[in-house]
Formats: sequence, C-alpha cells, structure tokens
Amino acid sequence: MLDNVRANAPLIHNITNYVTVNDCANILLACGASPIMSDDIGEVEEITSICGGLCINIGTLNKNTIPSMFAAGKKSNELFHPVVLDPVGAGASKLRTETANKLLDEVKFTVIRGNISEIKALALGAGSTRGVDADVADAVTDETLDNAVTFARKFSARTGSVIAVTGAIDIVTDGNKAYCIRNGHPAMSSITGTGCQLSTMIAAYITANPEYPLEAATAAVCAMGLCGEKAFARMSALDGNSSYCNYIIDAVYNLTGDDLESGAKYEMR
Amino acid sequence: MLDNVRANAPLIHNITNYVTVNDCANILLACGASPIMSDDIGEVEEITSICGGLCINIGTLNKNTIPSMFAAGKKSNELFHPVVLDPVGAGASKLRTETANKLLDEVKFTVIRGNISEIKALALGAGSTRGVDADVADAVTDETLDNAVTFARKFSARTGSVIAVTGAIDIVTDGNKAYCIRNGHPAMSSITGTGCQLSTMIAAYITANPEYPLEAATAAVCAMGLCGEKAFARMSALDGNSSYCNYIIDAVYNLTGDDLESGAKYEMR
Amino acid sequence: MLDNVRANAPLIHNITNYVTVNDCANILLACGASPIMSDDIGEVEEITSICGGLCINIGTLNKNTIPSMFAAGKKSNELFHPVVLDPVGAGASKLRTETANKLLDEVKFTVIRGNISEIKALALGAGSTRGVDADVADAVTDETLDNAVTFARKFSARTGSVIAVTGAIDIVTDGNKAYCIRNGHPAMSSITGTGCQLSTMIAAYITANPEYPLEAATAAVCAMGLCGEKAFARMSALDGNSSYCNYIIDAVYNLTGDDLESGAKYEMR
Repeated sequence: MLDNVRANAPLIHNITNYVTVNDCANILLACGASPIMSDDIGEVEEITSICGGLCINIGTLNKNTIPSMFAAGKKSNELFHPVVLDPVGAGASKLRTETANKLLDEVKFTVIRGNISEIKALALGAGSTRGVDADVADAVTDETLDNAVTFARKFSARTGSVIAVTGAIDIVTDGNKAYCIRNGHPAMSSITGTGCQLSTMIAAYITANPEYPLEAATAAVCAMGLCGEKAFARMSALDGNSSYCNYIIDAVYNLTGDDLESGAKYEMR
Repeated sequence: MLDNVRANAPLIHNITNYVTVNDCANILLACGASPIMSDDIGEVEEITSICGGLCINIGTLNKNTIPSMFAAGKKSNELFHPVVLDPVGAGASKLRTETANKLLDEVKFTVIRGNISEIKALALGAGSTRGVDADVADAVTDETLDNAVTFARKFSARTGSVIAVTGAIDIVTDGNKAYCIRNGHPAMSSITGTGCQLSTMIAAYITANPEYPLEAATAAVCAMGLCGEKAFARMSALDGNSSYCNYIIDAVYNLTGDDLESGAKYEMR
Repeated sequence: MLDNVRANAPLIHNITNYVTVNDCANILLACGASPIMSDDIGEVEEITSICGGLCINIGTLNKNTIPSMFAAGKKSNELFHPVVLDPVGAGASKLRTETANKLLDEVKFTVIRGNISEIKALALGAGSTRGVDADVADAVTDETLDNAVTFARKFSARTGSVIAVTGAIDIVTDGNKAYCIRNGHPAMSSITGTGCQLSTMIAAYITANPEYPLEAATAAVCAMGLCGEKAFARMSALDGNSSYCNYIIDAVYNLTGDDLESGAKYEMR
C-alpha cells in the first residue's frame, strides 16, 4: 500500500484548517504524495480536478470555506476521486455537526476519520466532544471494543463510507470487515494535529490504491501509529511534544513498505 | 499554579492569527491545557461556552474575524470566563489600534499582554510600534523600569485588567502589586510567536487558577522565560531559531511546578 | 548582501498563504529581517507603508486577500518599495493564473520568483503546473539550460522584473545579465514551502540592497541553496523532511557573509 503511494505520488487537494496545515503538507510529502491547499470557491473545482484525491477537514471551517467543501466534494464525486472527511470538533458546535452531516448527505465519502466522540456526534446526532478531543467517557478500550466495532460497522453501512475511529485502539471498517489496530503511543495526544495528518495521509493511501479503500485506510492508520512508536523511541530527556511532532513526520519519511508490514499490529474482527 | 494547569487541563478557545497558531496549540498541550481554534461568527459563542477560557489575538485580524472577537469576548464575560487580549501590532495600523481599543471598551479582559510599544499604543492612543516588534526607544531597562511600572499600573487601574508588558524585563501588575520578571533570553526575539504563545499560556494559567489572575499570569510569564533559558542551554552550534522554537515548547512540556518555583526570577515592586 | 540584511533589519510585509507562513516568518528572522503578516484590505496600505518591502504569495489566495494584494502592491509602488511576487500554483487554476497576470499588469514587481512551470504559465499563458510543483517535463537541466535562460531573459525584458526561476539549476536574470546557480539539494523538494521561504528572503535581500536587485536576489537564491546543503549534511539516519525544514532555517540563522561568499556556486551567462 505504501509502496504504491511512493510509486504514484498522488496529488492531494486539501481544504483544511490553518492550525495543522503545515504538518499536513509535510506528512503528505513524507509518505510520497504531494499536497495542494486551496479553499476559494473560485478555484476548488478546478484544483480538485487536477488532483487524485481530496481531504476535507472542518477544523477551522468558516462561511467562506464551507461552500468550497461542498463544491470540491461534489466535483470529486463526479470524477470518481476518493474523498476523505475529517469532522474535527463535530459535536462541539452546531455549525460543525450540521456542516459535517450536510456534507454526508451531499457528498459521498470514501473514508470518514475521526475520534470516537466526533463519529458519535455524526452517527447519533448528539455529542459530548471535548473541543477537538474525544470525551474520556467515550474511550475505546478492550472492554468497549466490541460495542465500538458494532457501532462503527453500522455507521459504515449507513454512510457507505469506510469508517476510521482512531484512539488508543483504532477501528477501520467497511461495514463488513473490521480491523482493530494497536499501533501508536499515548504521547501522540500531546501534539496538535496527528488526527488531521492521518486523515490526509489516508487520502494519499486510498488514492494510490483505489481498489482497496479499506485496506489502504487501515495501512495508513497502522503507519501513523507505528511512526508514533518509532518517533517516541527516539525521544531524549529534553525532548517534548514539539520535537515529537517533527520526529513523527521524519519517521513517516523514512518508513518503508517492509517496516510497515512487520510493524503493523492489527487483527480482523 | 502550573500544577493546577496540569490537574485541570483547561480547554482554551483561541481566536488567533494564522502565523503562530500551530505553536500556540502545541504550547497549550505542552503546559497541560487543550486548545481549540475557532473564528467563525456562526460558532464562536457556542465554542467559547464549552471552554474554560478565551485568548483573543489580533495578529492577522480581518473583517470576518473581528466580529467573532467581540461576540466571543462578550459571551465569555457573561459566563465569567477569563479572557486574555494580545494586541499584536497595535500602533502599526489604525485597524489594529482601533479594534484593540474597541475591544477594551466592550469586553472585560482579565489580562492584556503585549510588548511595551503595543501597550503604549493602547494606553496613549499613539504608537511607534515597529510592525509587531517593540520600538527600541521604548525598551524597558533598569533605568526606565520605575517609569514603566508606574505606566503599567495606571493602565491596569484604567482597564481593570492585569497588564503584562513583556520584553527584556517583564512587568505584570494588577494596578496595585507589580511583579518584575527577569527570566528569558534575548534569542527569544529571533523566533516568531513567543509573545502569542505566552498569551495563550497565560489564558491556560488564569483559567486553572481563577482566584489568582495576577499570580497566575506572573507564573506563566516566568515559565515562558525560564523555558527560553532552558531551551537556549540546549542549543548546539548548528541550531538556530527554528530548533530553538521547538526546544522552548519542549521545555514547557517538561517543566514541573518545582522547576518553575526554583527557576522563577521575580521581585515585587 | 547578507551583511546588509543583518545591518538594516528590513521589515517585510507578507501577504501570503497559511500553509508555510510560520516558516516564512522564521526565515525572515533567521536572515536578520523582521516579518509582518497582514492581509485585510482595511490595513494593508498602512502596513506596507511602515515596511521596507513587500512579498505577495498567492499560495492560498482568496476573494478577501486578492484585493489586498493589489492595494498593497500599488501602495508599495508609489513608495518605491521593492515588491516580490511568488505566483504559487500559477497554471493550476484560472484564478491563480489570471490573478498573477493581473498583478503583473497593475503592479510593478522588482522580482518574480517561481518554479519553471509557474513562470511558463505566466509567460506563455498556458501551464502544465502539477499543483504547486514543477512539471517534470519542464525541468531545467544542463541540456535545457540555454533555452531556459533565453526564456527567462525574454520574460524579464517584457515585465521589467528580475526573474528568478528556481529548481535543480536556478536562473536569475534582469534581462541582460543572467546568473545560473548550482547550490541546493534534491531533498529540498520534500519540504513544503522552501520556495515561499526563498521568495520572502529575496524580499529581505533586495530591500536591504536597493541598488542591486539582480545581485541581491541572486545572493538570496545562493543562500537558500547553500543552507539546503548545510542542513542536509547535518541529517542523521532518523531525520526526515520535518527536521530538514528546521535545519534549513537554522542554517540561514547561522549563515555569515563569508560563508555565503565561499559557498555560493554561480556562473554568469
């Protein structure tokens, strides 16, 4: 899956937030893809047309960028380009929840990736999202894993999208098969934007592997977690979350297909 | 003060500039708080309501985000949430000076943090701000410190806000007590955004210590300066301002309450 | 040229994209200049007036910032300030190509810097830009260098601007003299924003050396490439594109006039 990203170098259109956008661009380059960020209604359809895939991230959505999300999403659908939705902070405001739900109605997403609280906000119409972080009460643990997988499967069946719920244990499902992934490190939650980075990396993986959206998304989730582990192993006593963020992108840059094959920790349910 | 930030993990709403926003998010996470960035008028009141505190930074203000600053500020006031103002570049344009002054009229700020030129622009209605940096002629030195403290005290009395004037020597005052802080390193001025980062870290400290805005703001100023010292001590011959920026956030991540207690260099005037 | 940047510390106004803006601010500080980012129509003329030079970058242009580009550009022209255009992604959408061409019509640019595909899109009215990267078919190599120099000279003569075409071999020309520069490292293309950073660094160099736009732009191009080499030499096995980005800015921070004099690899054609 990763080798195909490096071989095809897909160009990924991002309509994304201004908080983590630089890291999103660099992680795309790190995994072998190319980024273009563009959010003006006057060009998004044209930009998405020259790209291979699209990632829509609502992290700092506003009245100018929301129409662009719809226009780019619909255009990508017309062209059969893969599209990822990252519903950042869904559940934290009506604007976020309603925009995400309206996007689900009008755009067909290949993959939706969020934390458990964001996905619950979309699936259940009500959320307890703590800002842009998952509510502790929602956390996916070994005890709640079966329920969470069932929940994700149902939401996948309803939306027709691969659902990636990421957290301590990640779940990726197409409604039928479900992968549970145990890569990653708790320190990843001390960095802003690992979720945003993963979402756009998923866009790169599914664009380079168009026949296998479930497996490609799963590979990207494993890759991000594995790189979180590798980066953490590199931390010195003086390093903190800022260096950790750099080290994760560095690890994505250095990751090979063989590394991913041997380091991925997943099971099928 | 710091221990309370780590124990309470306050969620901080930021309406801020797109230059330093990523570092602001990461320094909040580094000190134990959580960030959410949101600036659309359609959601800022709701977002600020689920947060513990608000930081308004006018670094790249524009006609869309200015109304959001007023709406979020007023809503936070209603909810008795602490609010910080960072008047970036006040004095450099009418739009900045007037917006900051109008914010002062309509929103009650718990803390206002700026460099001496920005604070003078607000207090005196005229400025010689050099872009977003302080004018050299304004610099707070041992010779001018008494005058600067008197000036800050008066502005605090007029606004009812804790005033934090940061530079080579920092001053934090509630109009009555004044702390002078001698932490920090001159190289901090070679990084974009140490001021922005400090402002949002102040928001985290005062939100976690609501009874002690003066002391909490002072602790945050000491913490930022101390971390600037620690980070500089870590610099190798090949490191420059970019690594230094990472090292400061890393130092904030690793700072303990005991470190801060023993490393803070302040006196009361 | 570099010594003058450090001695004069020019203040540079940037109307730029939100992807690479933080790195642009830090590279300006690294080379001895000061950044201010501002894009609201309500203040750009005033902001540009207090600055020494302006850099317009269309990387995430939108309907709010486009009028600001024209207003700031015209004001800078009135004040005889140097102005740089970075036509990011020209050729990738009509909005980008037309905005860049309209800017060329209405604003006099001291320097235009882009990759070969972007410059071709402007010069020939048609482009094959691959998003924000140059098309491989356009690459400047030893075989195509003579043609590319001729092309750049003609575009310089037509626009009256110094043209900087950057890539594996860089070309800087004022229509008469042309410098070919062989500094740099292929890994620089694995980082987002090295082009944006170079454009604003050119603005700093030409502002501090107003009599020598061609030579100052050439010096900035050499400096960026040389720092790319120095930064690459510092890379460890675990480092990737994220650390590389930091190391380049660090190298700019540590670069002396003597380093640049001895490390610059250029020839005149």
